[in-house]
Amino acid sequence: MQINLPEVLAEVTEQFARYERALTGNDVAVLDELFWNSPHTLRYGAAENLYGYDEIQAFRAARPSQGLAREVVRTAITTYGRDYATTNIEFERNGRIGRQSQTWVRMPEGWRVVTAHVSNMAQPG
Amino acid sequence: MQINLPEVLAEVTEQFARYERALTGNDVAVLDELFWNSPHTLRYGAAENLYGYDEIQAFRAARPSQGLAREVVRTAITTYGRDYATTNIEFERNGRIGRQSQTWVRMPEGWRVVTAHVSNMAQPG
Repeated sequence: MQINLPEVLAEVTEQFARYERALTGNDVAVLDELFWNSPHTLRYGAAENLYGYDEIQAFRAARPSQGLAREVVRTAITTYGRDYATTNIEFERNGRIGRQSQTWVRMPEGWRVVTAHVSNMAQPG
Repeated sequence: MQINLPEVLAEVTEQFARYERALTGNDVAVLDELFWNSPHTLRYGAAENLYGYDEIQAFRAARPSQGLAREVVRTAITTYGRDYATTNIEFERNGRIGRQSQTWVRMPEGWRVVTAHVSNMAQPG
């Protein structure tokens, strides 16, 4: 298992950056493209648990397009072999720390997010 | 990319069940075994962001051994090829819904969690 092969890491980093730009810019077409089109795909959001591509797509279409900006304060991208990767970030929005975790798989159609989990960090106490 | 090959799914399901038993039983040795021993491993918990195996191990060693029970209310396990998998659960503890996401890789030493994210679902409003 080769970890962080430079060319694989570069590919995933590029797709991850596309995702981040699309998220904060509310480019729903790119967000839809980058999630695996499968009933197995899932996304846990701060306040919702979405199972399957259709639920995720419906959520994207319905959410407000304002207030999406965030500052990424820490990034950890790791690749495993040539076809598998994880991307994890801490971000700040409205003075709170959030975390986003994604698992990526190289599908025949390209790199796709197969699972995602976004949450706010619990307040102490 | 073969999704959910039965023998691979069976392997991951078994290791995932071992993890769940170890977590609720506070079997720290098994928890330590099942996380990848690498500086790349990370775990976002409800109230902490841990980078690298050493930080995760120190957190396990220090946490209280009581109040760990939880009821798993929904499970989604997916395997990708022979060496990669994701496990996602919703669980209930103290009347709140939590979510746990893990990414697993088959390393030379066996199936290991390479990233994990645990969070409480945000309360509405």
